[in-house]
Amino acid sequence: MPGNSFGKIFRITTFGESHGPAVGVVVDGVPAGLRLSQEDLEFELSFRRPGRLYVSGRREKDVPEILSGVYNGRTTGSPIAIVVKNTDVISSFYEEVKVKPRPGHADLPFIMRYGYENWDYRGGGRSSARETVGRVAAGAIAKKLLMFHDTWIAGRLKSLGPVDSPPADFLQILCSKYSPVRASDPETEAKFQELVKQATVEGDSYGGVAEIVVKNPPAGLGEPVFDKIKADLAKAILSIPAVTGFEYGLGFQASRMKGSEANDSIVRKGERLGWRENKSGGILGGITTGEDIVVRCSFKPTSSIRKPQGTVDLRTGEPAEISVLGRHDPAVAIRGVSVAESMVALTLVDHSLRSGVIPPVKLEERQAEVIEDRWRRYMEECRPTAESQS
Amino acid sequence: MPGNSFGKIFRITTFGESHGPAVGVVVDGVPAGLRLSQEDLEFELSFRRPGRLYVSGRREKDVPEILSGVYNGRTTGSPIAIVVKNTDVISSFYEEVKVKPRPGHADLPFIMRYGYENWDYRGGGRSSARETVGRVAAGAIAKKLLMFHDTWIAGRLKSLGPVDSPPADFLQILCSKYSPVRASDPETEAKFQELVKQATVEGDSYGGVAEIVVKNPPAGLGEPVFDKIKADLAKAILSIPAVTGFEYGLGFQASRMKGSEANDSIVRKGERLGWRENKSGGILGGITTGEDIVVRCSFKPTSSIRKPQGTVDLRTGEPAEISVLGRHDPAVAIRGVSVAESMVALTLVDHSLRSGVIPPVKLEERQAEVIEDRWRRYMEECRPTAESQS
Amino acid sequence: MPGNSFGKIFRITTFGESHGPAVGVVVDGVPAGLRLSQEDLEFELSFRRPGRLYVSGRREKDVPEILSGVYNGRTTGSPIAIVVKNTDVISSFYEEVKVKPRPGHADLPFIMRYGYENWDYRGGGRSSARETVGRVAAGAIAKKLLMFHDTWIAGRLKSLGPVDSPPADFLQILCSKYSPVRASDPETEAKFQELVKQATVEGDSYGGVAEIVVKNPPAGLGEPVFDKIKADLAKAILSIPAVTGFEYGLGFQASRMKGSEANDSIVRKGERLGWRENKSGGILGGITTGEDIVVRCSFKPTSSIRKPQGTVDLRTGEPAEISVLGRHDPAVAIRGVSVAESMVALTLVDHSLRSGVIPPVKLEERQAEVIEDRWRRYMEECRPTAESQS
Amino acid sequence: MPGNSFGKIFRITTFGESHGPAVGVVVDGVPAGLRLSQEDLEFELSFRRPGRLYVSGRREKDVPEILSGVYNGRTTGSPIAIVVKNTDVISSFYEEVKVKPRPGHADLPFIMRYGYENWDYRGGGRSSARETVGRVAAGAIAKKLLMFHDTWIAGRLKSLGPVDSPPADFLQILCSKYSPVRASDPETEAKFQELVKQATVEGDSYGGVAEIVVKNPPAGLGEPVFDKIKADLAKAILSIPAVTGFEYGLGFQASRMKGSEANDSIVRKGERLGWRENKSGGILGGITTGEDIVVRCSFKPTSSIRKPQGTVDLRTGEPAEISVLGRHDPAVAIRGVSVAESMVALTLVDHSLRSGVIPPVKLEERQAEVIEDRWRRYMEECRPTAESQS
Repeated sequence: MPGNSFGKIFRITTFGESHGPAVGVVVDGVPAGLRLSQEDLEFELSFRRPGRLYVSGRREKDVPEILSGVYNGRTTGSPIAIVVKNTDVISSFYEEVKVKPRPGHADLPFIMRYGYENWDYRGGGRSSARETVGRVAAGAIAKKLLMFHDTWIAGRLKSLGPVDSPPADFLQILCSKYSPVRASDPETEAKFQELVKQATVEGDSYGGVAEIVVKNPPAGLGEPVFDKIKADLAKAILSIPAVTGFEYGLGFQASRMKGSEANDSIVRKGERLGWRENKSGGILGGITTGEDIVVRCSFKPTSSIRKPQGTVDLRTGEPAEISVLGRHDPAVAIRGVSVAESMVALTLVDHSLRSGVIPPVKLEERQAEVIEDRWRRYMEECRPTAESQS
Repeated sequence: MPGNSFGKIFRITTFGESHGPAVGVVVDGVPAGLRLSQEDLEFELSFRRPGRLYVSGRREKDVPEILSGVYNGRTTGSPIAIVVKNTDVISSFYEEVKVKPRPGHADLPFIMRYGYENWDYRGGGRSSARETVGRVAAGAIAKKLLMFHDTWIAGRLKSLGPVDSPPADFLQILCSKYSPVRASDPETEAKFQELVKQATVEGDSYGGVAEIVVKNPPAGLGEPVFDKIKADLAKAILSIPAVTGFEYGLGFQASRMKGSEANDSIVRKGERLGWRENKSGGILGGITTGEDIVVRCSFKPTSSIRKPQGTVDLRTGEPAEISVLGRHDPAVAIRGVSVAESMVALTLVDHSLRSGVIPPVKLEERQAEVIEDRWRRYMEECRPTAESQS
Repeated sequence: MPGNSFGKIFRITTFGESHGPAVGVVVDGVPAGLRLSQEDLEFELSFRRPGRLYVSGRREKDVPEILSGVYNGRTTGSPIAIVVKNTDVISSFYEEVKVKPRPGHADLPFIMRYGYENWDYRGGGRSSARETVGRVAAGAIAKKLLMFHDTWIAGRLKSLGPVDSPPADFLQILCSKYSPVRASDPETEAKFQELVKQATVEGDSYGGVAEIVVKNPPAGLGEPVFDKIKADLAKAILSIPAVTGFEYGLGFQASRMKGSEANDSIVRKGERLGWRENKSGGILGGITTGEDIVVRCSFKPTSSIRKPQGTVDLRTGEPAEISVLGRHDPAVAIRGVSVAESMVALTLVDHSLRSGVIPPVKLEERQAEVIEDRWRRYMEECRPTAESQS
Repeated sequence: MPGNSFGKIFRITTFGESHGPAVGVVVDGVPAGLRLSQEDLEFELSFRRPGRLYVSGRREKDVPEILSGVYNGRTTGSPIAIVVKNTDVISSFYEEVKVKPRPGHADLPFIMRYGYENWDYRGGGRSSARETVGRVAAGAIAKKLLMFHDTWIAGRLKSLGPVDSPPADFLQILCSKYSPVRASDPETEAKFQELVKQATVEGDSYGGVAEIVVKNPPAGLGEPVFDKIKADLAKAILSIPAVTGFEYGLGFQASRMKGSEANDSIVRKGERLGWRENKSGGILGGITTGEDIVVRCSFKPTSSIRKPQGTVDLRTGEPAEISVLGRHDPAVAIRGVSVAESMVALTLVDHSLRSGVIPPVKLEERQAEVIEDRWRRYMEECRPTAESQS
């Protein structure tokens, strides 16, 4: 049964394997009239791109080719197919993986599910994080369309291994885009970098926690009962490779509290009603409250590490060791922040369409122009400041 | 857009409000030939029933009336409609809620979404946990059908407020069904009970963490990319009222680890390959490994508490206080365990059908009989032992 | 896999068997604020009710009990469960059917699919046209909600067996509701009645063609490519028992024409553009043009007839004859008109919501009042005139 | 809302515009292990290819590039993305269409729906029949996978304008693939060719009826109630551009019959039960009976004709005439046969997977080999015989 699509109205379908000819995505359900260019996609793709310091060394330019659904710089209401060619593929590393499935990886489960003969083991095949290129490209369209309601999305790496960050405001989180380790302040950035270097030297890796914040979400999003916004966010986030947990607002901390501590007073906030401390992370009863949405997720450490680990040789059935070569992130959580942002954006835009906040068929000219203005401001505002340009 | 259905092949649709005539569920996609009786449903419903010590005092017998889809004690392949009448309704408590929305509750978000005029405020209306009756009734069918593969599901309250449990084996977890506070051992049970009593006296409530274990799941379940089993479990669990977080295997703990710590060696286990310590909670690459599935979720404390909290009087727009009366659980996590079990069962049975592990149209006679035998054993085995019958 | 639901946003799930305790429907996705009463449902149900002259003699009052989703006469945005008890059940007729499957009926296919042991043969079980009670009840809500855009739906029996009707205007078609044979003029009514009487005497039955017209549909409905409005209408109509064909506009006639004959000039119609003769039945490119939608469907003759027909005795495998007793319509097409109207309404309301023509979450007070006024006028206008009250 | 996908388990999503860079399809839900090559796709694509006599003169090689989901000649269970570049694009013909929407075409409805500014008018944009390339490529995979159950699908042009065909057996219908006008016998072929030539000379076009036959379908396919096989076939067929009607078995003819004429006796056929004359076209109660499935659909005449037709000049709002140039089929029904076959195949394979007749996750080696053998025989058997190679 097909599992490669996400969303009910703004619906994406990704395709492609790590070492196949290309990866890509078809985005269906985008209203007509949105201005859209290759540059819009490249802007967001640049923040998950490998080949930079502190992340995987695979060198991919990730040029998103738009094959359909855009004419004269505007969306037409037809599905938007985006293809990104794979150019820097080295499959030789994987000959060992082919006979020694990696611990902590999808190798053996894929064999169990689809059969050894049908397994594309090269670069992790379909289970590779390279699949997320399509999510980030589609996420760029989602983020742009959310400008309809002036909703902005930003993420940061909140903790890496044992190192945690101090609280940060929205602008700091937004500017973490330009930190090579997605830190929201210079001190934390230095500590994260140190950890990454250490892991690289040791042939090991680190886990981390990403935090995503949605500024100015529409109130009233989320469908009782099963399509609560928190449920759809959880699914979106847990669909990301290496994510092992999800929480929003107080999250797991709430389980240790009393009701009188966890509850949050309702108060007047100018014209509208709101919540004093936004303890519930912008969601109550599965419905957005209009306060900022705050979600966090846990990434496990990259499972492909140089350090030898125990496995079984599939040819002999005997115990074996594998030391995974190839080019891998020392901490998938770093590039994972971009993917998590995208998944939150895709969930929010889908629910905005479901709830009628964004028109489903076409944007008026004026609406499209307002979106374009906000989007330019967004691309501008999260430019790196002098301090964060380490 | 409809949000009251869950599942792709084994698909449930719940309906009903807390103080309306009835709650219920339609279960579509059940193969023909399964033996099914009202008693099967009542067995599971008995563990989420209110009106007992340590939980809400509302007295509901929760008799599930089967209106369709079963003939001569067998499912026919047609949708199974189950209705449970609401009998013990006291709406008078809610006249104050009508003008003073409760902090931490869905009252105000429902008003924001659907409009004040259209809001059924009585007993929380559609946002009431009473909706979960339908999930547990459907969950009973799911659990029974999972016996096809001899897959068993059990849950316990792992922690309540600040009190945590020691590790427990599957049978202990199964037998927690008969603990009034869903504890898996007598010492923890005593501590949990103490906490609940204290909260009741204080007019307060506690949060908690539920843990659900799946014994002997089929290997190879879960669809790359978006319908990973972990993603669908996360959605299932976060769709439960009051749940604020989800994790599986090492969960959030993995974010603080190195790869060499979080990875788990692949080893021979008799005829099959497996994982030494099952650190990944039975799921890798979003696919079941055949090891036990272990998930945990965080419940926030019941938001309806007697202790006065700040809100706004909707008539005047002025700050106000509310002391919530009515009959509420001192810790929703206790009865939440049953609901979480049901959601895990519904997810697993759906994926078992999606992956062709269970036949989608009809069971052979022999298959149905094997299921019946296992189900009887299941109902037998989790009977309370002397010790747990406190 | 579940097949008992229809619609993406306005989504219905029907349940129930002919001789089970009840039939019913859950309607999910209805915006909050619509005024809705049991009378609204009964109005539409009255036109498919059996127990009258010229149709099945089964006497069912068809009282629709609303179990959820409506509070104080308004929809709340929650799913609306409607249950209709089966009261006049005589299963004894079916003991013969149990061993001699009826030609032209679903008996043998159900056995092939679900297994003989699991087959509810009483009254046709799930394949009985009694299932359509739920469709008509849900169709009443759909028709009412379509009043948002002042869209009206009406149907008539265009031909019965060899007898065809002359053209009719919308009001005539609307008033056919009060003709016992759904004829749109008195002369045709007399001829249809004659045919029905003759068929009854002969122990035989007749087929017919229903025609459904949608007055003032929104322009621009229908999603390229697969969810064209014509495709979703075709599915809706073919899902009705006994329907064997569907066409819209020129339909099959177009296949014999030249392009210069079948094309229709585009012309100015006051402020808007339109089509001179509406040859395409209100649909072009799968999208509504704003002109009236005209669809027709073919009903085969009732397959349950008294005349003896050849079958096989399942006990012996030998050829046998069956003369079907029980209470059956001499022409299912007559009551089928109501069902076809309902399916068209369900399709149109779903697409109106999909395209943002009707708000998906809630109606404003003023909007709900306008709907109510139009609905009252609708119920009034299609009251029988003196002439049609034969 | 997305409308560019079809199928629940075997799910396709098409994309691309007539004059954009490419058209294509993503096929999700194909089990692993199926042998698949570019040649398999090209075989089926060759029968809908333009640039030949009697059809559109546009010269497209239609080379299907497989971007994902196939490794070492086997499907991997991952989505299969197929891209076909558009190479022979002449947009200049469409400058007139841009201001004078064509009668009988989707031009004006697209403008009504998506807005004039966002309309890709070149070559019909998304509404062009060029979109069906993706359907036929996906249909090739569907047809091949149906060989699992030895189910074969074939189609012919039954009538063109006023000329009808005599009955034909399955092999004749299969071999119509090699008739340039999809005729099933030489006499009819000559008549069809004459009509096409005449229409070309006149600058006009003809409608026609396609007939699709499914040999040896699995019995028991189709889900009561809404996902009846006849309902899903109707949707599939009506989603094809220019189709105006659908029927199966006796179709509209049944509406003029008595029950005793339309019913079909149940008889023993060797080991199994069957129906004497297959009057119901292989479907009863919406479920396949195991007899051959027979469906027909009406294509209207190509709406783009050279003969002048009335329209409105969008610049002035004044009446105007348009004589459509560009390269168009004189009868879309001819190439439409391939598309209709594909849609039937997509529907059947989806229901075969839904009902568990084909395994959803992977094929065993032996199963894949049997499929491959049957497929080779299929490609061989419908090679043109001497007679049909006119």
